[in-house]
Amino acid sequence: MSSSCTDKHQLEEGDILTPRFDANGLIPAICTDASTGEVLMFAFMNEEALNRSIETGQAWYWSRSRQKLWQKGETSGNTQTIVDMRTDCDQDVIWISVEQRGGSACHTGRKSCFYRRIETGQTAGQDIKLTHVDDVRVFNPKDIYGR
Amino acid sequence: MSSSCTDKHQLEEGDILTPRFDANGLIPAICTDASTGEVLMFAFMNEEALNRSIETGQAWYWSRSRQKLWQKGETSGNTQTIVDMRTDCDQDVIWISVEQRGGSACHTGRKSCFYRRIETGQTAGQDIKLTHVDDVRVFNPKDIYGR
Repeated sequence: MSSSCTDKHQLEEGDILTPRFDANGLIPAICTDASTGEVLMFAFMNEEALNRSIETGQAWYWSRSRQKLWQKGETSGNTQTIVDMRTDCDQDVIWISVEQRGGSACHTGRKSCFYRRIETGQTAGQDIKLTHVDDVRVFNPKDIYGR
Repeated sequence: MSSSCTDKHQLEEGDILTPRFDANGLIPAICTDASTGEVLMFAFMNEEALNRSIETGQAWYWSRSRQKLWQKGETSGNTQTIVDMRTDCDQDVIWISVEQRGGSACHTGRKSCFYRRIETGQTAGQDIKLTHVDDVRVFNPKDIYGR
Protein backbone atom coordinates (compact mmCIF):
# COMPACT_ATOMS: atom_id res chain seq x y z
CA MET A 1 0.00 0.00 0.00
CA SER A 2 1.12 3.55 -0.64
CA SER A 3 1.69 5.84 2.30
CA SER A 4 -1.62 7.64 1.71
CA CYS A 5 -3.46 4.30 1.68
CA THR A 6 -1.83 3.38 4.96
CA ASP A 7 -2.79 6.73 6.44
CA LYS A 8 -6.39 6.35 5.26
CA HIS A 9 -6.54 2.83 6.67
CA GLN A 10 -5.14 4.01 10.00
CA LEU A 11 -7.58 6.93 10.06
CA GLU A 12 -10.63 4.78 9.36
CA GLU A 13 -9.74 1.49 11.00
CA GLY A 14 -7.11 2.38 13.58
CA ASP A 15 -7.49 2.48 17.32
CA ILE A 16 -5.62 5.68 18.11
CA LEU A 17 -7.35 9.06 18.03
CA THR A 18 -5.89 11.33 15.36
CA PRO A 19 -8.46 14.15 15.25
CA ARG A 20 -8.55 16.26 12.13
CA PHE A 21 -9.12 19.87 13.06
CA ASP A 22 -10.22 22.33 10.36
CA ALA A 23 -8.29 25.38 9.10
CA ASN A 24 -9.38 27.25 12.24
CA GLY A 25 -8.18 24.48 14.54
CA LEU A 26 -11.73 23.36 15.31
CA ILE A 27 -13.64 20.08 15.12
CA PRO A 28 -17.47 19.91 15.00
CA ALA A 29 -19.11 18.38 18.07
CA ILE A 30 -22.62 16.91 18.06
CA CYS A 31 -24.25 16.64 21.47
CA THR A 32 -27.20 14.31 22.07
CA ASP A 33 -29.24 13.43 25.15
CA ALA A 34 -28.14 10.06 26.54
CA SER A 35 -31.69 9.25 27.65
CA THR A 36 -33.70 10.19 24.58
CA GLY A 37 -31.18 10.35 21.71
CA GLU A 38 -32.44 13.84 20.86
CA VAL A 39 -29.85 16.26 19.49
CA LEU A 40 -29.42 18.89 22.19
CA MET A 41 -26.89 21.21 20.59
CA PHE A 42 -24.01 21.53 18.17
CA ALA A 43 -20.77 23.37 18.79
CA PHE A 44 -17.06 23.21 18.07
CA MET A 45 -14.09 22.00 20.11
CA ASN A 46 -10.51 23.10 19.72
CA GLU A 47 -7.69 20.78 20.78
CA GLU A 48 -7.77 21.92 24.39
CA ALA A 49 -11.56 21.60 24.65
CA LEU A 50 -11.34 18.10 23.19
CA ASN A 51 -8.55 17.13 25.59
CA ARG A 52 -10.40 18.51 28.61
CA SER A 53 -13.60 16.73 27.58
CA ILE A 54 -11.73 13.43 27.30
CA GLU A 55 -9.83 13.90 30.55
CA THR A 56 -12.70 15.13 32.71
CA GLY A 57 -15.76 13.50 31.15
CA GLN A 58 -17.43 16.92 31.17
CA ALA A 59 -18.25 18.78 27.95
CA TRP A 60 -15.89 21.59 26.99
CA TYR A 61 -16.22 23.59 23.79
CA TRP A 62 -14.59 26.49 21.96
CA SER A 63 -16.86 29.52 21.68
CA ARG A 64 -16.37 31.10 18.28
CA SER A 65 -18.38 34.20 19.20
CA ARG A 66 -16.47 34.82 22.43
CA GLN A 67 -13.19 33.29 21.18
CA LYS A 68 -12.63 31.41 24.39
CA LEU A 69 -12.56 27.98 25.90
CA TRP A 70 -15.90 27.27 27.49
CA GLN A 71 -17.11 24.59 29.86
CA LYS A 72 -20.76 23.99 29.05
CA GLY A 73 -22.79 25.21 32.01
CA GLU A 74 -20.10 27.45 33.51
CA THR A 75 -22.63 30.34 33.57
CA SER A 76 -25.98 28.54 33.67
CA GLY A 77 -24.92 25.61 35.83
CA ASN A 78 -26.24 23.30 33.13
CA THR A 79 -23.13 21.17 32.78
CA GLN A 80 -22.96 18.05 30.62
CA THR A 81 -21.59 14.73 31.86
CA ILE A 82 -20.39 12.61 28.96
CA VAL A 83 -21.92 9.12 28.88
CA ASP A 84 -20.56 8.11 25.46
CA MET A 85 -18.02 9.81 23.21
CA ARG A 86 -17.22 8.83 19.64
CA THR A 87 -15.43 9.96 16.52
CA ASP A 88 -16.40 9.24 12.93
CA CYS A 89 -14.79 7.31 10.07
CA ASP A 90 -12.40 10.06 9.04
CA GLN A 91 -11.99 11.51 12.54
CA ASP A 92 -13.15 15.02 11.73
CA VAL A 93 -16.30 15.02 13.91
CA ILE A 94 -16.96 14.28 17.59
CA TRP A 95 -20.26 12.94 18.93
CA ILE A 96 -20.94 13.09 22.66
CA SER A 97 -23.97 11.63 24.36
CA VAL A 98 -24.56 13.39 27.67
CA GLU A 99 -26.53 13.68 30.87
CA GLN A 100 -27.72 17.27 30.70
CA ARG A 101 -27.81 18.87 34.14
CA GLY A 102 -30.77 21.23 34.64
CA GLY A 103 -32.60 19.76 31.70
CA SER A 104 -31.66 22.48 29.23
CA ALA A 105 -28.82 22.76 26.72
CA CYS A 106 -30.05 25.87 24.91
CA HIS A 107 -29.34 29.49 25.86
CA THR A 108 -33.02 30.24 25.13
CA GLY A 109 -33.97 28.04 28.10
CA ARG A 110 -35.37 25.21 26.02
CA LYS A 111 -34.25 21.61 26.44
CA SER A 112 -32.71 21.43 22.96
CA CYS A 113 -31.55 24.07 20.48
CA PHE A 114 -33.54 22.25 17.80
CA TYR A 115 -37.06 23.40 18.69
CA ARG A 116 -38.21 24.33 15.19
CA ARG A 117 -39.16 21.93 12.42
CA ILE A 118 -38.70 22.50 8.70
CA GLU A 119 -41.54 20.68 6.94
CA THR A 120 -40.30 19.07 3.73
CA GLY A 121 -42.21 19.55 0.48
CA GLN A 122 -41.96 23.34 0.66
CA THR A 123 -40.79 25.15 -2.47
CA ALA A 124 -37.45 26.95 -2.42
CA GLY A 125 -37.61 30.52 -3.64
CA GLN A 126 -40.57 31.19 -1.38
CA ASP A 127 -40.35 31.72 2.37
CA ILE A 128 -39.64 28.38 4.06
CA LYS A 129 -41.81 28.14 7.16
CA LEU A 130 -40.62 26.87 10.53
CA THR A 131 -42.93 25.10 12.96
CA HIS A 132 -42.22 25.48 16.67
CA VAL A 133 -42.35 21.99 18.18
CA ASP A 134 -41.01 22.59 21.71
CA ASP A 135 -41.24 26.01 23.30
CA VAL A 136 -41.17 24.85 26.92
CA ARG A 137 -38.66 27.01 28.81
CA VAL A 138 -36.82 25.12 31.51
CA PHE A 139 -35.35 28.42 32.68
CA ASN A 140 -35.77 32.09 31.87
CA PRO A 141 -32.63 33.26 30.04
CA LYS A 142 -32.87 36.72 31.64
CA ASP A 143 -32.51 35.12 35.08
CA ILE A 144 -29.30 33.40 34.02
CA TYR A 145 -27.62 35.64 31.49
CA GLY A 146 -29.21 39.00 32.41
CA ARG A 147 -30.54 41.35 29.76
CA MET B 1 -35.46 47.19 20.40
CA SER B 2 -32.46 47.97 18.24
CA SER B 3 -32.28 46.45 14.81
CA SER B 4 -29.78 43.82 15.94
CA CYS B 5 -32.09 42.81 18.81
CA THR B 6 -34.96 42.47 16.35
CA ASP B 7 -32.78 40.38 14.05
CA LYS B 8 -31.71 38.15 16.93
CA HIS B 9 -35.30 37.75 18.07
CA GLN B 10 -36.41 36.88 14.54
CA LEU B 11 -33.53 34.41 14.17
CA GLU B 12 -34.25 32.62 17.44
CA GLU B 13 -38.02 32.92 17.75
CA GLY B 14 -39.22 33.52 14.20
CA ASP B 15 -41.05 31.11 11.94
CA ILE B 16 -39.26 31.77 8.66
CA LEU B 17 -36.06 29.89 7.76
CA THR B 18 -33.09 32.24 7.42
CA PRO B 19 -30.19 29.79 7.31
CA ARG B 20 -26.77 31.16 8.18
CA PHE B 21 -24.19 29.63 5.89
CA ASP B 22 -20.51 29.88 6.84
CA ALA B 23 -17.78 31.73 4.92
CA ASN B 24 -17.66 28.82 2.45
CA GLY B 25 -21.41 28.92 1.87
CA LEU B 26 -21.98 25.76 3.90
CA ILE B 27 -24.13 24.77 6.86
CA PRO B 28 -23.38 21.71 9.07
CA ALA B 29 -25.92 18.89 8.81
CA ILE B 30 -26.35 16.24 11.51
CA CYS B 31 -28.04 13.06 10.32
CA THR B 32 -29.64 10.63 12.81
CA ASP B 33 -31.55 7.38 12.41
CA ALA B 34 -35.30 7.99 12.82
CA SER B 35 -35.77 4.57 14.44
CA THR B 36 -32.92 4.50 16.95
CA GLY B 37 -31.82 8.13 17.34
CA GLU B 38 -28.22 7.07 16.62
CA VAL B 39 -26.09 9.61 14.79
CA LEU B 40 -25.46 8.08 11.36
CA MET B 41 -23.26 10.71 9.75
CA PHE B 42 -22.33 14.37 9.60
CA ALA B 43 -21.86 16.41 6.46
CA PHE B 44 -22.41 19.89 5.04
CA MET B 45 -25.12 21.35 2.84
CA ASN B 46 -24.79 24.35 0.56
CA GLU B 47 -27.87 26.40 -0.32
CA GLU B 48 -28.84 24.18 -3.22
CA ALA B 49 -28.42 20.97 -1.21
CA LEU B 50 -30.56 22.47 1.56
CA ASN B 51 -33.24 23.56 -0.91
CA ARG B 52 -33.31 20.17 -2.62
CA SER B 53 -33.53 18.38 0.73
CA ILE B 54 -36.49 20.54 1.74
CA GLU B 55 -38.24 20.22 -1.61
CA THR B 56 -37.74 16.49 -2.15
CA GLY B 57 -37.59 15.09 1.38
CA GLN B 58 -34.44 13.21 0.35
CA ALA B 59 -31.03 14.06 1.82
CA TRP B 60 -28.72 16.12 -0.39
CA TYR B 61 -25.32 17.34 0.72
CA TRP B 62 -22.32 19.27 -0.57
CA SER B 63 -19.20 17.14 -0.89
CA ARG B 64 -16.19 19.20 0.16
CA SER B 65 -13.72 16.58 -1.08
CA ARG B 66 -15.35 16.27 -4.50
CA GLN B 67 -16.64 19.87 -4.59
CA LYS B 68 -19.99 18.82 -5.91
CA LEU B 69 -23.64 18.53 -5.01
CA TRP B 70 -24.34 15.02 -3.86
CA GLN B 71 -27.53 13.09 -3.24
CA LYS B 72 -26.80 10.64 -0.46
CA GLY B 73 -26.96 7.16 -1.96
CA GLU B 74 -26.47 8.20 -5.58
CA THR B 75 -23.60 5.70 -5.88
CA SER B 76 -24.39 3.16 -3.16
CA GLY B 77 -28.18 3.24 -3.49
CA ASN B 78 -28.35 3.98 0.24
CA THR B 79 -30.59 7.03 -0.02
CA GLN B 80 -32.02 8.82 3.01
CA THR B 81 -35.70 9.75 3.34
CA ILE B 82 -36.16 12.64 5.73
CA VAL B 83 -38.63 11.93 8.54
CA ASP B 84 -37.96 15.08 10.54
CA MET B 85 -35.90 18.17 9.71
CA ARG B 86 -34.98 20.95 12.12
CA THR B 87 -32.79 23.97 12.53
CA ASP B 88 -31.27 25.29 15.74
CA CYS B 89 -31.67 28.46 17.79
CA ASP B 90 -29.37 30.60 15.64
CA GLN B 91 -30.15 28.79 12.39
CA ASP B 92 -26.60 27.76 11.57
CA VAL B 93 -27.06 24.00 11.85
CA ILE B 94 -29.48 21.51 10.25
CA TRP B 95 -30.58 18.25 11.90
CA ILE B 96 -32.29 15.62 9.80
CA SER B 97 -33.74 12.38 11.12
CA VAL B 98 -33.93 9.81 8.32
CA GLU B 99 -34.97 6.38 7.18
CA GLN B 100 -31.67 4.99 5.92
CA ARG B 101 -32.15 2.77 2.87
CA GLY B 102 -29.85 -0.25 2.79
CA GLY B 103 -29.11 0.06 6.49
CA SER B 104 -25.77 1.82 6.04
CA ALA B 105 -24.83 5.51 5.98
CA CYS B 106 -21.03 5.03 6.08
CA HIS B 107 -18.74 4.57 3.09
CA THR B 108 -16.95 1.87 5.10
CA GLY B 109 -20.13 -0.24 4.92
CA ARG B 110 -21.03 0.17 8.57
CA LYS B 111 -24.44 1.36 9.72
CA SER B 112 -23.07 4.60 11.22
CA CYS B 113 -19.85 6.54 10.73
CA PHE B 114 -19.50 6.66 14.52
CA TYR B 115 -18.26 3.12 15.16
CA ARG B 116 -15.39 4.00 17.51
CA ARG B 117 -15.68 5.09 21.12
CA ILE B 118 -13.33 7.45 22.94
CA GLU B 119 -13.27 6.38 26.59
CA THR B 120 -13.16 9.41 28.88
CA GLY B 121 -10.62 9.57 31.70
CA GLN B 122 -7.68 9.12 29.35
CA THR B 123 -4.78 11.55 29.72
CA ALA B 124 -4.07 14.02 26.92
CA GLY B 125 -0.44 14.05 25.82
CA GLN B 126 -0.47 10.26 25.56
CA ASP B 127 -2.08 8.28 22.74
CA ILE B 128 -5.86 8.42 23.13
CA LYS B 129 -7.23 4.94 22.45
CA LEU B 130 -10.32 4.23 20.35
CA THR B 131 -12.56 1.25 21.02
CA HIS B 132 -14.36 -0.29 18.07
CA VAL B 133 -18.00 -0.72 19.09
CA ASP B 134 -19.66 -1.68 15.79
CA ASP B 135 -17.66 -3.25 12.99
CA VAL B 136 -20.54 -5.04 11.28
CA ARG B 137 -20.33 -4.34 7.55
CA VAL B 138 -23.72 -4.05 5.89
CA PHE B 139 -21.95 -3.97 2.53
CA ASN B 140 -18.43 -4.41 1.22
CA PRO B 141 -17.16 -1.00 0.08
CA LYS B 142 -15.14 -2.60 -2.72
CA ASP B 143 -18.35 -3.97 -4.24
CA ILE B 144 -19.88 -0.50 -4.32
CA TYR B 145 -17.06 1.95 -4.86
CA GLY B 146 -14.44 -0.36 -6.46
CA ARG B 147 -10.83 -0.35 -5.32
